[in-house]
Amino acid sequence: MATEKLAGFRERIRSELDRAVDFWLKHSHDKVYGGFFTCIGRDGKVYDELKYVWLQGRQVWMYCRLYRTVERFHKDEILEAAKSGGEFLRRFAWVPSAGSMGKCAFSLTRDGQAVKVQRTIFSECFYVMAMDELARVTGDREMQVHAETVMDQLVHWVRVDPSGLGRPQLPGDLPVNSLAVPMMLLCLVEQLAEGRVDVADKYRELGSWCVQQILQHVQRDGTAILESVSNDGKELPGCQGRLQNPGHALEAGWFLLQYAVQHGDKELQRIAVDKFMEIPFRTGWDQDHGGIFYFLDVDGLCPTQLEWSMKLWWPHCEALVAFLMAYSLSREPTLLDRFTQVYDYTFSHFPDKEHGEWFGYLTRQGSVELDFKGGPFKGELH
Amino acid sequence: MATEKLAGFRERIRSELDRAVDFWLKHSHDKVYGGFFTCIGRDGKVYDELKYVWLQGRQVWMYCRLYRTVERFHKDEILEAAKSGGEFLRRFAWVPSAGSMGKCAFSLTRDGQAVKVQRTIFSECFYVMAMDELARVTGDREMQVHAETVMDQLVHWVRVDPSGLGRPQLPGDLPVNSLAVPMMLLCLVEQLAEGRVDVADKYRELGSWCVQQILQHVQRDGTAILESVSNDGKELPGCQGRLQNPGHALEAGWFLLQYAVQHGDKELQRIAVDKFMEIPFRTGWDQDHGGIFYFLDVDGLCPTQLEWSMKLWWPHCEALVAFLMAYSLSREPTLLDRFTQVYDYTFSHFPDKEHGEWFGYLTRQGSVELDFKGGPFKGELH
Repeated sequence: MATEKLAGFRERIRSELDRAVDFWLKHSHDKVYGGFFTCIGRDGKVYDELKYVWLQGRQVWMYCRLYRTVERFHKDEILEAAKSGGEFLRRFAWVPSAGSMGKCAFSLTRDGQAVKVQRTIFSECFYVMAMDELARVTGDREMQVHAETVMDQLVHWVRVDPSGLGRPQLPGDLPVNSLAVPMMLLCLVEQLAEGRVDVADKYRELGSWCVQQILQHVQRDGTAILESVSNDGKELPGCQGRLQNPGHALEAGWFLLQYAVQHGDKELQRIAVDKFMEIPFRTGWDQDHGGIFYFLDVDGLCPTQLEWSMKLWWPHCEALVAFLMAYSLSREPTLLDRFTQVYDYTFSHFPDKEHGEWFGYLTRQGSVELDFKGGPFKGELH
Repeated sequence: MATEKLAGFRERIRSELDRAVDFWLKHSHDKVYGGFFTCIGRDGKVYDELKYVWLQGRQVWMYCRLYRTVERFHKDEILEAAKSGGEFLRRFAWVPSAGSMGKCAFSLTRDGQAVKVQRTIFSECFYVMAMDELARVTGDREMQVHAETVMDQLVHWVRVDPSGLGRPQLPGDLPVNSLAVPMMLLCLVEQLAEGRVDVADKYRELGSWCVQQILQHVQRDGTAILESVSNDGKELPGCQGRLQNPGHALEAGWFLLQYAVQHGDKELQRIAVDKFMEIPFRTGWDQDHGGIFYFLDVDGLCPTQLEWSMKLWWPHCEALVAFLMAYSLSREPTLLDRFTQVYDYTFSHFPDKEHGEWFGYLTRQGSVELDFKGGPFKGELH
């Protein structure tokens, strides 16, 4: 029964993946300046020519990973597109600054001029993912070294000295452990270390540090995952301290689970499922309308984010990966039930039957509220 | 008929104003550290102790303006609260920087330590409003000079050299004329010049420049008000160029109308009403559910702002002021109809009958989506 059910899911997911990849192959490639358009309307029309660096990076990564690991995507068209995106990034992503490698831009004009630089690490993170995966499919050793150099800069910003990020040091702005940061670095450790013993050794301590930083987000006597905590693992005051982002917690859950399996750590495996999957699912699921909330306040107050109750595609993707991975390890029927519940909501709400690919942003009630396929924070797949 | 109707409106507005002022007098004053709490829940409970500088500034201004111009608010309690807020701002708002007066913080801890600095002019604008209005009620000449000094710094950032705002100069980031900037400066010119001939002379050319900058936002052969245009008054490419913010346009409308009346400029008076009121009202009103949209794309595409379809309290306030002012000048019945339509929506949706004050954020359908009375972008009244 479970086997049949899973085969059905697999078939549907496979066909959605094909439709999504087709959509981006068809509509997003900039044949004039290279790289990819990222703002793409419901029907595939480019509605803004700005190129978001982190989404360029993710598309390069996605193409390369599909090319390398899924036979039906092992096609020249995909490899060539990935290479074009990689070249565009190497040529234009970096905004130099005196005495350092500089920062990646957040967004670029169509022809590659920097428009905006964020004072965070995320554009650089997706740049590293792109370069490393591209190095794997092209065998470009220099590119792999380049990815590691950027990675080491990221680690320096996070663990040693954040001043290169460009944020002024303010007395009331205490250092914060944001879930996104150790989660993203752990993901990069996985990326860089895969199949490489020397790199795995180099980043072993970093991986372990990321896990500890993520675990600090388990708060309120183990009953809540909070998005931001103090650097010594305490709850922060106010809204910032009470904020929950269930999709992020679920994402951290499967990163932790993957790490736990690799390291044979049964206790961490249990925490990943019980804390980082069960809690956000239980508290984050909308009992009235279905779907996972974007933001919640752990005390049940109203979040200050205007979009708090919207249903976004990506937390649902993270939940699907998390519960499927957890189920495949334990064969615990409850986990398959969770997966099924998320699956039913996801596949009945997000796919666009008419034009392919998925809508990204629904109202709390589940109707499409923003109908584009790509925007500043939504790119190819998730 | 119109007179009776207007008297009814006036009575209701008067009672809502009393309830709102009571709410802030009762719940927002920090008796320990001075200044005002700005994050206040539905029932008056402080849910976050951060103090947003621009909202501190607006509350000081509001108290002083009420104290100075409305007899029933001419009370010691209100004056003392305004002074406490003013002292808090003077003591803590500024983050110094070498070789200049620095920048105002965007937010402070409860005891006044800077948490965040924005790379825009708006915290400083509300600081100027607060200081100038406080100087008027206290007769503090030094404070008035201080307000002007900050004003001159603002004008320098906007018209001469923006580098002090701290934004890195990037080749793809071309200068933009954002409606908010000349609108805000025009408002400050009004504030500083009221009843002072010498100050009015000093800022005369600036006022005229602001009006010209605002008029550049009339685009598409006079059929649309766009939120951002190029510095030479052309439509910008992409989403940024197509963005409409009907509430902002209506606000600019009554600023322009006020200016036009003062300067006896009939042509500008016509433009203020026909372009900056009629157009945003016609395009910004939600025909299905009532209320004014937050953001729209002039080509009818989907905006990328997740909250685009929400109904916020402040665009409705701006619309009320705009149409009432326009009606009082021309006695044109259509304008009273407009006012009535906005009034009916506003007063049936935003006031909180139970705890006083107004909700700020409704769904497109008009139900309360965020229930707090004060937050990072909502303070006392509007």
